[in-house]
Amino acid sequence: MPRLVLKFGGTSVANVERIKNAARHVKREWDAGKNCAVVVSAMSGKTNELIAWCKEAAGRYDAREYDAVVASGEQVTAGLMAMALQDMGLPARSWQGWQVPIYASDAHGAARILDVDGRNIEAGFAANREIAIVTGFQGLHKESGRIATLGRGGSDTSAVALAAGLDAERCDTYTDVDGVYTTDPRVVPKARRLERVSFEEMLEMASLGSKVLQVRSVEIAMVHRMPTYVRSSFDDPANPRPGTLICDEDEIVRDQPMESQVITGIAFSRDDAQITLRQVADKPGVAASVFVPLAEANINVDMIVQNISEDGAFTDITFTVPSADYERATALLERARGEIGFRALQGARDVAKISAIGVGMRSHSGVAARAFKALSEKGINILAITTSEIKFSVLIDSAYTELAVRTLHTLYGLDKDD
Amino acid sequence: MPRLVLKFGGTSVANVERIKNAARHVKREWDAGKNCAVVVSAMSGKTNELIAWCKEAAGRYDAREYDAVVASGEQVTAGLMAMALQDMGLPARSWQGWQVPIYASDAHGAARILDVDGRNIEAGFAANREIAIVTGFQGLHKESGRIATLGRGGSDTSAVALAAGLDAERCDTYTDVDGVYTTDPRVVPKARRLERVSFEEMLEMASLGSKVLQVRSVEIAMVHRMPTYVRSSFDDPANPRPGTLICDEDEIVRDQPMESQVITGIAFSRDDAQITLRQVADKPGVAASVFVPLAEANINVDMIVQNISEDGAFTDITFTVPSADYERATALLERARGEIGFRALQGARDVAKISAIGVGMRSHSGVAARAFKALSEKGINILAITTSEIKFSVLIDSAYTELAVRTLHTLYGLDKDD
Repeated sequence: MPRLVLKFGGTSVANVERIKNAARHVKREWDAGKNCAVVVSAMSGKTNELIAWCKEAAGRYDAREYDAVVASGEQVTAGLMAMALQDMGLPARSWQGWQVPIYASDAHGAARILDVDGRNIEAGFAANREIAIVTGFQGLHKESGRIATLGRGGSDTSAVALAAGLDAERCDTYTDVDGVYTTDPRVVPKARRLERVSFEEMLEMASLGSKVLQVRSVEIAMVHRMPTYVRSSFDDPANPRPGTLICDEDEIVRDQPMESQVITGIAFSRDDAQITLRQVADKPGVAASVFVPLAEANINVDMIVQNISEDGAFTDITFTVPSADYERATALLERARGEIGFRALQGARDVAKISAIGVGMRSHSGVAARAFKALSEKGINILAITTSEIKFSVLIDSAYTELAVRTLHTLYGLDKDD
Repeated sequence: MPRLVLKFGGTSVANVERIKNAARHVKREWDAGKNCAVVVSAMSGKTNELIAWCKEAAGRYDAREYDAVVASGEQVTAGLMAMALQDMGLPARSWQGWQVPIYASDAHGAARILDVDGRNIEAGFAANREIAIVTGFQGLHKESGRIATLGRGGSDTSAVALAAGLDAERCDTYTDVDGVYTTDPRVVPKARRLERVSFEEMLEMASLGSKVLQVRSVEIAMVHRMPTYVRSSFDDPANPRPGTLICDEDEIVRDQPMESQVITGIAFSRDDAQITLRQVADKPGVAASVFVPLAEANINVDMIVQNISEDGAFTDITFTVPSADYERATALLERARGEIGFRALQGARDVAKISAIGVGMRSHSGVAARAFKALSEKGINILAITTSEIKFSVLIDSAYTELAVRTLHTLYGLDKDD
């Protein structure tokens, strides 16, 4: 009998009425002959309430205690969902992370799932097709016996890892949108829902600003080649819309003219800040002197551009860091100024990163070049560029974000027809 | 190093500010050289919120899922209390019931504690005097691996059981009153706080209507001879009032004139209903025909009075049942009318049970007789009487409750002087 994992996020289980509605989606799949495991988040708002209490309780709090507190949110949802399913006449029981067990690392607050032992849940499938409701976002650290949470959005990761652990045929992620779009429909009304998107493309989209799925969950789905649906929990459970399937590239039938398929989606993010070091001595090891200290301070550096100066003696280095780390990064670089040797540090937080993603870029040349031309025709100045096999990103003044996204969306034929 | 268990109820941890105040009580004891384990309830109101969700989720809910949901409340408090203590510079960590572990029966929602394994907590004491914060109200059912809750007020029981398991010198129960009184001070303003009360007396008081401690927790304290303080968490942690110590009878110094020590306290309850069966055939087995069906329906029968009728052929049987079971009990007896054989069933819910408790009754005769006389002088009609070694109870019209309590309180010399 095929196995299915369904995942419901916080807004999909925000109150008991919505939990009951989510249960009806589960019932539809169960009635269709699937053995079901359901991963749930905390009721929307509950995690924030718990975090606020933690902050009030202590100035600097113990991440292990923080985890003990915030993990309770999912436990409540799991029990309520089990009751709601039982009330519909279905066999169901809740499983907390430590009961499954789902083993996690001890990086409390940002733990990684190490292993999922699916045997207890499989025994329930075999006995009476019992539906397993599993708390997302958390696992058991085997050695200490304590609960570790995976960090924000971690329930997506729990769901995909559980699907892999149970050898499920698919993981369905129910959320408050009806799928993955070519770009954010709030910015581009002509954005289209994608029927299918490849793991690789989805990973880039998630990394580059699309909030639909957590990056880590897409990574796990890709590693296990686990087909994953993104669909809306607010649809009528009896008649849901199709959603978007994240799957292997070769399962994607490209039925549109080739040209329009080079790019699958446009992502954007305003969460980066730009730092430029002017007139850095152009000598071996200078890049290391800049980036090693940042790495040691756990500051992620993303785009890096280094221009050779005319005389060959100096160079300008431009790179981006997360906005949240901007102050820390500039302070750190100013302290290391003598060691690195630069004339000036210039920075900007009002920048945006616009990215175009598509596996078709592999076989088409000149894709990015068309974007540079189109953006320049709109008077948009490009501050930095990075490219990889299936995407390119440009850094621009954030005031031009929407204009740039719409320009590229139209340029690559992503606008819907009507 | 002496070990102490401290327990804080829901109103004492109703919000983070109160949790911090409770932590200051713990700090005082820790600073005084005690190794401390702390048992906490859910933040006041949280359990009710969780129960309301359960009721909304399902008409008839699975007690195991109910337990999974409601047990989360204590987990939140335990984590927050650990953080608050750490913030004061003390070593502390939270322990959920399954982590200690505290083993419980699988009577979900009304489970009994079977065993407390204190070794993990003791290791923390030995390592760095780590304070253990333990979730009250819950334990692990070993065979199923599921969480079982002890029912309302179960955190008192958790605390006493943990104190016994850790071989603590005492269990301090912090609550919203400053001790055990000779009777409810809201009814009798002249009620006095008792400095000490024996396990046996406290057990009777708890059983007979005093709400200060849960009956089951007093039973466990008595079995283990675990001295237990009842004191107020709202006192200044630096200068708390003494509270009431529940202890062995021979540790109680009676420093007042003997006469006034015969009775220790007056309890009362309006939670009973009276049922009288008129003209029951007076033959062997008739009592069984009445009480066996009630017992099988899990209806607790308390006071029983049977009068032999004048001619010896018939008898009247009067007894009390919990008010909540009154309808069920009368319906059940009416159905069994033919079998039992009675002329009429009369019942009343507007009755009250007034009880006087004191170990001094053992060595004094005529104690109850004085009460009957005093009550009759006030025009209070006694409907039924039961007595045991250290208490007697009378059933009266509930309209006379306060009058009867005050009359007995004065009669036995319990009024405070001023």
